[in-house]
Amino acid sequence: MELQVALAKVSKYAVHESGDTLEMIERPHGGLSFVLVDGQHTGRGAKQISNLVARKAISLLAEGVRDGAAARAAHDYLYTHHDGKVSAELYIVSIDLVSETIVISRNSHCPAIIGDAKGLHVFDEPSSAIGVHRRMKPIITELPLASHTTVVIFTDGVFDAGVRDGQHFDVAVFVADQLRDANLGAQPLADAILARAVELDRGRPSDDTSVLVVRVVPRAGGDSARRLSVRFPLE
Amino acid sequence: MELQVALAKVSKYAVHESGDTLEMIERPHGGLSFVLVDGQHTGRGAKQISNLVARKAISLLAEGVRDGAAARAAHDYLYTHHDGKVSAELYIVSIDLVSETIVISRNSHCPAIIGDAKGLHVFDEPSSAIGVHRRMKPIITELPLASHTTVVIFTDGVFDAGVRDGQHFDVAVFVADQLRDANLGAQPLADAILARAVELDRGRPSDDTSVLVVRVVPRAGGDSARRLSVRFPLE
Repeated sequence: MELQVALAKVSKYAVHESGDTLEMIERPHGGLSFVLVDGQHTGRGAKQISNLVARKAISLLAEGVRDGAAARAAHDYLYTHHDGKVSAELYIVSIDLVSETIVISRNSHCPAIIGDAKGLHVFDEPSSAIGVHRRMKPIITELPLASHTTVVIFTDGVFDAGVRDGQHFDVAVFVADQLRDANLGAQPLADAILARAVELDRGRPSDDTSVLVVRVVPRAGGDSARRLSVRFPLE
Repeated sequence: MELQVALAKVSKYAVHESGDTLEMIERPHGGLSFVLVDGQHTGRGAKQISNLVARKAISLLAEGVRDGAAARAAHDYLYTHHDGKVSAELYIVSIDLVSETIVISRNSHCPAIIGDAKGLHVFDEPSSAIGVHRRMKPIITELPLASHTTVVIFTDGVFDAGVRDGQHFDVAVFVADQLRDANLGAQPLADAILARAVELDRGRPSDDTSVLVVRVVPRAGGDSARRLSVRFPLE
C-alpha cells in the first residue's frame, strides 16, 4: 500500500494572502501529521492567526504530544493570546504508524468526508471553532490504515462555494462520483474538488479555499521512495 | 513564474528507517523553508538525531528567526544535548518572498549544485557538520528568485553512490545533462538523481539517500493554486 496526501488551495478573489495555513510534520514515533487552519476573516490578519495556531499545534505534535491534546493546547493558546475574541477552524489529520490508523481531529463547521472500500460517509457531528469558548473539545475519529481509505477535509471556501448564486456544493456526492475510479490519486481528487468549488464561485472564490485529501491506495511500482512535491505560484 | 520543490528519499538497503529528515514550514513573512538533516550513523538512532535537529530549526524559522541564526541554534542545541559527541549534516533552503531570494545554508561535506539561465555551479566551500565543534558557522549563499534558477542538495547517499564499486557519481554533470530540457520539473529531476544514485549502488543504497530540488520555472497555466503532494510507501 502507499499513502498519498494532497493539498490544493487558493485565496479569496482579489486577496493576495490566504488566511488558511497548512503545515505538515513527521511524527516522532512514525508517520505524518497535517494541520489545516482557517483563521477568522481574510487577508493578513487571518494569516497571522492561522499561522500562530498551526505553529503551536505542529510544534507539539513534533514532540510526540497526542492530537487531541495538541488541538486543546492550540485552542488554549489562541484563547489566551487574543482574550477569546478571535476564532479559527482547526483540522489535524495524522497517519499514525504505531497504531496503524488515520486520526482526524476536527474543530470546524465543515464536515469531513471519509470513504472506505464499502462507501462514503459524511462526518458532521457538531463541532465548534477554537479560540472563543472557555472550554472546547475536538471531535476525533480514528480509522484503520486500510487500502482505499479516503479522507477529504476542506475549509469554508469549499463548503460555501456557489452560495452567492443560491447554489450548494454537495462535496460528498462529487467525491463519490470521482471515486468511481478506485485508483484515483490524491492530487487529481484534491484538484477536482478545488476546481469545482472555484467554478461554482464563477472563477472568483468568495473565501480562502483549501482542500486536503488523504488516500491509501495499492502500491504503484517497486520503488520505495518517499516523495514530497510543492508547487507555489510566484507573483 | 512558479516555484517547484521536490524531495525524493530512500533509506539504506535493509534498514527500515531513514536517518535523513526533511521538514518544511511556511515563513511568517512569506515564503517557505526546507530543512534537510542527515543524522550520524543509520537507523533509529540517526533518525532521532535528525528529528531533533530538524524540529529545532523548523520551530525557530516558524517564529521568523533568520536562517543563519536557526542553523547556529540547531548546532548549539545538538552540541549541548549530546555533549559534542554526535554530529549531523544540516541544510536549510529558504524561499524568502520579502527579499525575493533563495537562501541556502549549508553544514555538510556534500556540495550544493546551483544553476541559473547561464549554467551550473558547484558550491563546495569547506563546511563542517553541526554538533561536534565548539564553534561552527554555516556557509550561506543567497540567489535572486529568478526564472530557471535551480538548487539541488543531497545527502551522502547520493554523494557516495557507487563508491563501493570504485565509481563516482558526478551529480553536477548529471544535472547539467537533465537540464537540457529547460522546463524539466523539480520532481522528475529529483527522481532521476535518486534513481541514478540507487543504480550506482546496484539497487542497494549503501546509505540513507535524499535529494531536494528547488526550481523556478515559467508559470505553466492560469491556475494560481498552491499544491502540496506527498507519497509515502506503507509496509
